[in-house]
Amino acid sequence: MTRAVAPIAKDDKIAALAAGLRGGDRRALARAITLVESTRADHRAEANALLAALLPHTGRSIRLGITGVPGVGKSTFIEAFGLHVIGQGHRIAVLAIDPSSKRGGGSILGDKTRMEQLARSEAAFIRPSPAGTTLGGVARRTREAMLVAEAAGFDVVIVETVGVGQSETAVAEMVDMFLLLLPPAGGDELQGIKRGIVELADLMVVTKADGDLLPAAGRTQSEYQHALRLLRPSAPGWTPSVLMSSAVSGKGIAEVWEAVGRYRAAVAQADALARRRADQARAWMWSEISEGLLAALREHEGVRAELKKLEHAVAEGRLTPGAAADRAIDVFLAGAKAR
Amino acid sequence: MTRAVAPIAKDDKIAALAAGLRGGDRRALARAITLVESTRADHRAEANALLAALLPHTGRSIRLGITGVPGVGKSTFIEAFGLHVIGQGHRIAVLAIDPSSKRGGGSILGDKTRMEQLARSEAAFIRPSPAGTTLGGVARRTREAMLVAEAAGFDVVIVETVGVGQSETAVAEMVDMFLLLLPPAGGDELQGIKRGIVELADLMVVTKADGDLLPAAGRTQSEYQHALRLLRPSAPGWTPSVLMSSAVSGKGIAEVWEAVGRYRAAVAQADALARRRADQARAWMWSEISEGLLAALREHEGVRAELKKLEHAVAEGRLTPGAAADRAIDVFLAGAKAR
Repeated sequence: MTRAVAPIAKDDKIAALAAGLRGGDRRALARAITLVESTRADHRAEANALLAALLPHTGRSIRLGITGVPGVGKSTFIEAFGLHVIGQGHRIAVLAIDPSSKRGGGSILGDKTRMEQLARSEAAFIRPSPAGTTLGGVARRTREAMLVAEAAGFDVVIVETVGVGQSETAVAEMVDMFLLLLPPAGGDELQGIKRGIVELADLMVVTKADGDLLPAAGRTQSEYQHALRLLRPSAPGWTPSVLMSSAVSGKGIAEVWEAVGRYRAAVAQADALARRRADQARAWMWSEISEGLLAALREHEGVRAELKKLEHAVAEGRLTPGAAADRAIDVFLAGAKAR
Repeated sequence: MTRAVAPIAKDDKIAALAAGLRGGDRRALARAITLVESTRADHRAEANALLAALLPHTGRSIRLGITGVPGVGKSTFIEAFGLHVIGQGHRIAVLAIDPSSKRGGGSILGDKTRMEQLARSEAAFIRPSPAGTTLGGVARRTREAMLVAEAAGFDVVIVETVGVGQSETAVAEMVDMFLLLLPPAGGDELQGIKRGIVELADLMVVTKADGDLLPAAGRTQSEYQHALRLLRPSAPGWTPSVLMSSAVSGKGIAEVWEAVGRYRAAVAQADALARRRADQARAWMWSEISEGLLAALREHEGVRAELKKLEHAVAEGRLTPGAAADRAIDVFLAGAKAR
């Protein structure tokens, strides 16, 4: 990672990198994303400079979040969907967010062969999840990679996440529209969808709606369509619905893209998209500040020694969380003062 | 608030206060809660000392969170429920959490006459929501008031919240069991329950299940009972259900209390309660740290001037949230250093 970024240290290099990826140079695009993914302080400064240069050219894509439990057929759906979208004359970037992933390891999208056809297309750009341990860190890099992809002219950006853990909320907070893929099932099998995810969805898509699974897919669709009646519209002028799709037969793929268009029109009319993005940006800034302060506190030597003791005492009920927090903050700010 | 706390400045006063409320002195209880609700630095130190003294006597209550949209009949239900629980020989404390409330203003529970009968009982203690603007601050004071009430021998603690805003999550994170009150409705009226709340509920209770509203209450019950099939159990060994109640006829009130007992037995068996509380305490400590750091950053003069500009630039897309956050943190930690 470092090697790829080392050559670009000066402002003119940043400008060249920006011009390169704006002009469609895929190597420049890859290097730019590698730069924003780096956690080195000097790289962060360069990344901020690059993003500042790119910012006027961002925001012109529809940002889609896609999640679903392992086995739902996420990558198969995304490939079929992506190829359809490209066929409509669009350019699509697929980014992944998965805090648990190790670069090159078994991370989602780590293995591009999962989307071989899509990966081969000049109109597509597929990027594995950045390495990282904290969701906040991974989310920041994915958000910034999204901006870079937009500046590179990709007008459809998909952020994929595994349907486990907290990452769905992070993704929902960085995209315009959130899609939940549902496996075909019925009756009690339906239980087990992670609590909270259904509520994030602007659109649900039952996958594998073909062959033997068609009846189960139909049951799933009607079950969730019914459950949706108990929820508020996810955005002004938009009520979530449940579609069926088959990557094999291609059935429903076009309908999903049409639904995305309808959603975009609905929220654009209500001016909801602009507000949503401004709110997301403000919220993102504050979560960045919060993450950054917590990271600084965790890295602080004096605090690190103290934290272990405090956490134990709190978990065992020997100390109130409030008192423990006051103590940790005092040590940190005193330490910051002394630095 | 200050006046009430002024007399207790020294350790022996803290000890006396702790002994007083442990002995059932209601004025000591009220003063103790006023102390933990104070935001003055010297009071916080006293509050931490008091809580340290009380901590060994906390945790022996069942902690219930109750929410529902305005008009669902929350206080009517809580009064009927509370009187029933007292009739079973228990002592009940009712705390409220409402970040938007102003002490003495139209806050929930601000007007005790809403629960006149319950408020008159020696076995009940009703406390309005502490004043405060940030949810984190209000939540901390409510959590600590809960500990004080437990030390004072109340073995059932209810934390009430209005069914709007973010406070439900905060309440769910401080209680053992979360109850969602549902208004009797049917068909499309069912729409509009805030997204996310249904997923937090360990138990749902349809209110006003009497007279003309009985059929609608029945529909609501079956609709939600059906929707629950799409969710995971909220705790190991426990599957949420939907009950009906009428504060007027008293119907269903005893059943709700029985359900609380069954829930408690189920989670105790799975040892889930102890783990849940330890996790809550750890999470609470970290949210306290996060809140505290953000508060310190907001209060920092140099940062305050900068923040306005940064937020505007971010909302207007002239600056990336990441770069803005880096800037704010640098100013803050440099400032902390310089202090």
